[in-house]
Amino acid sequence: MHARVHARKHEFTSCLLLDRLSADASCRCIILSGRGSRFTEGIDLTFAMAHMAQQEGEDVARRAFKLKAFVEHLQDCVSSLERCSKPVIAAVRGGCVGAGVDLICACDIRLCTHDAWFTVKEIDLGLAADLGTLQRLPRVCGNESWVRELAYTARRFDAREAYERGLVSAIEPTAEAMRDGALKLASVIASKSPVAVCGTKAALNYSRDHSVEDGLVMQRIWNMAALQSEDVGIAAAAAAHMGGRGKTQPTAFSKL
Amino acid sequence: MHARVHARKHEFTSCLLLDRLSADASCRCIILSGRGSRFTEGIDLTFAMAHMAQQEGEDVARRAFKLKAFVEHLQDCVSSLERCSKPVIAAVRGGCVGAGVDLICACDIRLCTHDAWFTVKEIDLGLAADLGTLQRLPRVCGNESWVRELAYTARRFDAREAYERGLVSAIEPTAEAMRDGALKLASVIASKSPVAVCGTKAALNYSRDHSVEDGLVMQRIWNMAALQSEDVGIAAAAAAHMGGRGKTQPTAFSKL
Amino acid sequence: MHARVHARKHEFTSCLLLDRLSADASCRCIILSGRGSRFTEGIDLTFAMAHMAQQEGEDVARRAFKLKAFVEHLQDCVSSLERCSKPVIAAVRGGCVGAGVDLICACDIRLCTHDAWFTVKEIDLGLAADLGTLQRLPRVCGNESWVRELAYTARRFDAREAYERGLVSAIEPTAEAMRDGALKLASVIASKSPVAVCGTKAALNYSRDHSVEDGLVMQRIWNMAALQSEDVGIAAAAAAHMGGRGKTQPTAFSKL
Amino acid sequence: MHARVHARKHEFTSCLLLDRLSADASCRCIILSGRGSRFTEGIDLTFAMAHMAQQEGEDVARRAFKLKAFVEHLQDCVSSLERCSKPVIAAVRGGCVGAGVDLICACDIRLCTHDAWFTVKEIDLGLAADLGTLQRLPRVCGNESWVRELAYTARRFDAREAYERGLVSAIEPTAEAMRDGALKLASVIASKSPVAVCGTKAALNYSRDHSVEDGLVMQRIWNMAALQSEDVGIAAAAAAHMGGRGKTQPTAFSKL
Amino acid sequence: MHARVHARKHEFTSCLLLDRLSADASCRCIILSGRGSRFTEGIDLTFAMAHMAQQEGEDVARRAFKLKAFVEHLQDCVSSLERCSKPVIAAVRGGCVGAGVDLICACDIRLCTHDAWFTVKEIDLGLAADLGTLQRLPRVCGNESWVRELAYTARRFDAREAYERGLVSAIEPTAEAMRDGALKLASVIASKSPVAVCGTKAALNYSRDHSVEDGLVMQRIWNMAALQSEDVGIAAAAAAHMGGRGKTQPTAFSKL
Amino acid sequence: MHARVHARKHEFTSCLLLDRLSADASCRCIILSGRGSRFTEGIDLTFAMAHMAQQEGEDVARRAFKLKAFVEHLQDCVSSLERCSKPVIAAVRGGCVGAGVDLICACDIRLCTHDAWFTVKEIDLGLAADLGTLQRLPRVCGNESWVRELAYTARRFDAREAYERGLVSAIEPTAEAMRDGALKLASVIASKSPVAVCGTKAALNYSRDHSVEDGLVMQRIWNMAALQSEDVGIAAAAAAHMGGRGKTQPTAFSKL
Repeated sequence: MHARVHARKHEFTSCLLLDRLSADASCRCIILSGRGSRFTEGIDLTFAMAHMAQQEGEDVARRAFKLKAFVEHLQDCVSSLERCSKPVIAAVRGGCVGAGVDLICACDIRLCTHDAWFTVKEIDLGLAADLGTLQRLPRVCGNESWVRELAYTARRFDAREAYERGLVSAIEPTAEAMRDGALKLASVIASKSPVAVCGTKAALNYSRDHSVEDGLVMQRIWNMAALQSEDVGIAAAAAAHMGGRGKTQPTAFSKL
Repeated sequence: MHARVHARKHEFTSCLLLDRLSADASCRCIILSGRGSRFTEGIDLTFAMAHMAQQEGEDVARRAFKLKAFVEHLQDCVSSLERCSKPVIAAVRGGCVGAGVDLICACDIRLCTHDAWFTVKEIDLGLAADLGTLQRLPRVCGNESWVRELAYTARRFDAREAYERGLVSAIEPTAEAMRDGALKLASVIASKSPVAVCGTKAALNYSRDHSVEDGLVMQRIWNMAALQSEDVGIAAAAAAHMGGRGKTQPTAFSKL
Repeated sequence: MHARVHARKHEFTSCLLLDRLSADASCRCIILSGRGSRFTEGIDLTFAMAHMAQQEGEDVARRAFKLKAFVEHLQDCVSSLERCSKPVIAAVRGGCVGAGVDLICACDIRLCTHDAWFTVKEIDLGLAADLGTLQRLPRVCGNESWVRELAYTARRFDAREAYERGLVSAIEPTAEAMRDGALKLASVIASKSPVAVCGTKAALNYSRDHSVEDGLVMQRIWNMAALQSEDVGIAAAAAAHMGGRGKTQPTAFSKL
Repeated sequence: MHARVHARKHEFTSCLLLDRLSADASCRCIILSGRGSRFTEGIDLTFAMAHMAQQEGEDVARRAFKLKAFVEHLQDCVSSLERCSKPVIAAVRGGCVGAGVDLICACDIRLCTHDAWFTVKEIDLGLAADLGTLQRLPRVCGNESWVRELAYTARRFDAREAYERGLVSAIEPTAEAMRDGALKLASVIASKSPVAVCGTKAALNYSRDHSVEDGLVMQRIWNMAALQSEDVGIAAAAAAHMGGRGKTQPTAFSKL
Repeated sequence: MHARVHARKHEFTSCLLLDRLSADASCRCIILSGRGSRFTEGIDLTFAMAHMAQQEGEDVARRAFKLKAFVEHLQDCVSSLERCSKPVIAAVRGGCVGAGVDLICACDIRLCTHDAWFTVKEIDLGLAADLGTLQRLPRVCGNESWVRELAYTARRFDAREAYERGLVSAIEPTAEAMRDGALKLASVIASKSPVAVCGTKAALNYSRDHSVEDGLVMQRIWNMAALQSEDVGIAAAAAAHMGGRGKTQPTAFSKL
Repeated sequence: MHARVHARKHEFTSCLLLDRLSADASCRCIILSGRGSRFTEGIDLTFAMAHMAQQEGEDVARRAFKLKAFVEHLQDCVSSLERCSKPVIAAVRGGCVGAGVDLICACDIRLCTHDAWFTVKEIDLGLAADLGTLQRLPRVCGNESWVRELAYTARRFDAREAYERGLVSAIEPTAEAMRDGALKLASVIASKSPVAVCGTKAALNYSRDHSVEDGLVMQRIWNMAALQSEDVGIAAAAAAHMGGRGKTQPTAFSKL
């Protein structure tokens, strides 16, 4: 029910992986976590400097086109989390630095352990964060003042501050508790109609970048087909069965 | 000074009512509350299933056009709260479920009682919320992570959480206290220049869906007429009279 | 390293001053504070009424064009804080009223003293706030409900509420502590690569008013030149030198 | 198969009429023509001046709100032609002046007689055209230079110029020939799948005001339901039957 | 009634000049023409190469910031033609090359002599046109195919082609005839209500860059003040006096 | 210097091919033509009906998701012509039907033979054109009235009409003449600086879907790097060498 994403050093293989999971009908929810005691290690400076050195001597504009293509590829990898048709839950322990923040901002929901910490690190490398943090973080947590302070100073902040400002939805005491919490949350999501879950993510993604009116138009066009799904009847019947008790009995929806 | 909105089952009569109140010069502020111990009961499943059944046998595209028209009508009813030229205050007690969340998100200010609770319920009915919650809730409370968790899980949340995440502006201990609080707030708003109040709502609505620059352009075009209002002089004189004490004596502005 | 901005009564000279500081390579960060015990005094009513009286007797449309030009000029002064290429920190003590709120919303980061207080005052003058508060405040703090209540009622709110809702990033006990805090924060920002700092501000400004996708496109076009900066190598070398200790040794970047 | 729209003096009843036709499944295409020898007579000055006089003595801002509501109503009437789900063909003979140009710009296709003439007349009444000409005419004919000259000078132009600049699609020698041409064109449109015709109009309206990318997104969401229509099979079968001869046999599609 | 704009080599003084004319109530329409037998000479290559050489040796990013500021300044000068509140008529004789095309695209109406010729020249200088041609030319003449061919090849085209594609509104046989035509056109515009003319230009500028719906909203907000102008009554009275003869007697409107 | 694109039946392989050409530094301009006597044959109805039949029996919403993915893939193939970094010239002979119109609208420049003909055919298949014609054709030729007539009626139009309305830039008498014309045009483009050509296409693509102001901002950020290209000096030197003769000596720019 969940996939392990290995974001290995120097490789952002997540792009293809996420696009595959997005199209895989047997996958309903994804948990993104780090291997070992840290979520991300931050950029490999040797790699970065080698990449720069490689382009010495060329025309400024020709280097510029190569850099644009390189950044576009990395951005595309990070954005694959967002365009994935299913919800992605980020589970963070230890340090979440630089590209780590880019990655979790492209996820749907963020959890972390008590000892997690975060840094919008790019300013310390002499560059503006270019993989999505400056675009998505202000929308994720709805606070320009806090985001700007973090982006200009690369100040480290802890789990408590991340929770209070809305970056993470919950803090768990241990890595195990977080793993359990993430799996439980994923299980709840996986028990819902995949037509409804994917439609909800599509609507939230679209609405974030369009006016309310445009969002409503898209919603009613989307529902021209979605409301004809058998899932509506199945879910309604299950809900009717449960009555006013405010809970829904798990139902077996077909794969999407 | 305030109107009672009866959102009866199967009927969303609020659309015409709100449009009428919007144009009624004797109305300056509106309070939207439920009748009885709950704000909304949630969707009537019998009604919904009957509506679906009614369209069996027809061509998919022809059903689709009917569904689009139906959703557009319901969206328009909910949006009538937002396009109403006067501020609308939602006062919530008990459960606020499904369409209830759509309704309060289209209001200007939200209050609730200590025992109020909320659910973005649509996912349990096999559908993506289509009356505005997915468009407006992220803007109302400025937090993508929390909204996505609620929309994917239909998790129930209480008054405290609604306050901390910014969905409601105040929690009152009892229904009576909330009623008094809402009436007091409405009275303050009704004591201000209606030219200024309606201009402020128009600007907030417009700015939410446009760039800051577009919002500033609209504001200065709006003020070409509004700053010539007699209300500016009346209010300025009253303010001058009150001096530096930070309060404004109620003044009698003409009807809009 | 920091500039004193004198926003004198009847004059909004900040516009030219900020544009000059924006282009001044020796300036890396700006602190905006009030002189004396209050951040702003609020509008000078005598001035405002005189301005209105001056235009008596003319054609409504001709007065309208003059008012538009006047508001556009004031908006431009306030917006000079936002378009300034360097970060601007607002340091607020005492009352921050009306245009004061417009000004601090156009800054990057806001600090205040324990006894600071704020009012979106314009509704009490019979007008909709027209210098940016209605456009920027909902984005600064990400909360529509709270902003609307403040804008409709002109209710005074204190430092604690400003902090909880995200308007200010920190509260300091005294004016001296705030001054020290602001200077320390400005020093940290000034120690970073000016290429990176200005690029980060440009990206945050642009992204606020564009879709995430448009923001990512702008970012990679920007980085066609910015990633070729010598600052990237200097910063990376310094960061490599510091190892995994999570701190960056101050480095001497050239002026921008 | 076609409806007569009576746009009587002082009344813009077309708004309700068009909205009704838009929802009427038995209507597939609409022709808008004038009664008598002119398409429109231009504004009734007595009516206009009476409307202004009626508002003497009131506060500038209060008059402003009334004017805004009045213009909004008229704009809504004109826009009902555009939001009508079926194509609307304008057939113009004689003069098409002022509001007449607003009306035909909101139609899908424009035909005229040899002796038709047009004027963007509003500048001669001391006002900027406010019912859509300034918004739609540059998009209808794709030429800013020509439109600006017409709008600043109220210069009269004839059928030939209207055709060359793309305002009208065809010129007919007589009123009878135009009537026949319009009916023939409407018959062709009415013989097509109404699912396809209404989907095409919805797409063209949407795409005009959105980026190409947004238009493509809307199109594929729309087609989630529309491609499942029985009309696709019926039309494909008919087209296959006709082979490579480039014509389509009229088929009997169900009402929408 | 008209101003002479001297766009001297190495100086783009038009920016300040246009902004001054925009605010000058005694100016109602502007004609932009070249001095001597050519409209523009094209870029001074010595100047351009000197400007580049001047920046040798500096950091790529620091040169980039300087280039951005330089281009922004030139763009602002060209855009001053567009943001000028009064219509600007371009009168072109001889060659109109490179920046000349940028300039005329920012004007409202374009006239030329029989022997005028045009080139989108920048591609021959190794750069993408950056002063507005690529943004405005496709909107001025509404033809992507033609514009792209011109921009990729720097092909020279003559007055006839410019007229057929809609770049110019009229071709005059001689420089004198063009001068007379431009003055006559400017006189007609200057005889109209300046409230209506400036309102029309503001609406056309705004509508070009916004959706039709946004344009209509702006228009009705603008008219809140503009329709209360004395010019409406004066113009209506004059129009009524002229009856159905399709001409308007020149009236004496007050200065704006 | 040019690539042959084989758009075989049932396969839209152009997507990968174009993306590869876009990144291939040895390719500077692309010509898209048909094989044999027709540009496109139109949709293969057997293929289309088989695709539909394949999905019988499934849930409406699940079929809807599959259709969306299918259309998105086809749209992406067509859009690969537009996002290709180099100019693409379409050379049309014989019939250009349905998807053929989608394809040529995504190209930069269109040429055709005297006997070419075109049809926006989709309405005859019971569907709205969904691969870009409805989005791009109105922008390519800047004429809403003509486009709507074509889209509602599937009327066939010839080379002359295509030229007059701006869909094609030139008509050649024979297939050979068109081939020569296309190659000559491609050669001219290939002789220009690839930095300038790719920058010009990027700017035209971007500007089409953004406001003029946004386009200008993008342009000056782009030029932060592009103006530092060695190509500017090389081209300027060559242009200086050629003097006022209005031609540019071919220069040898490095590969991009």
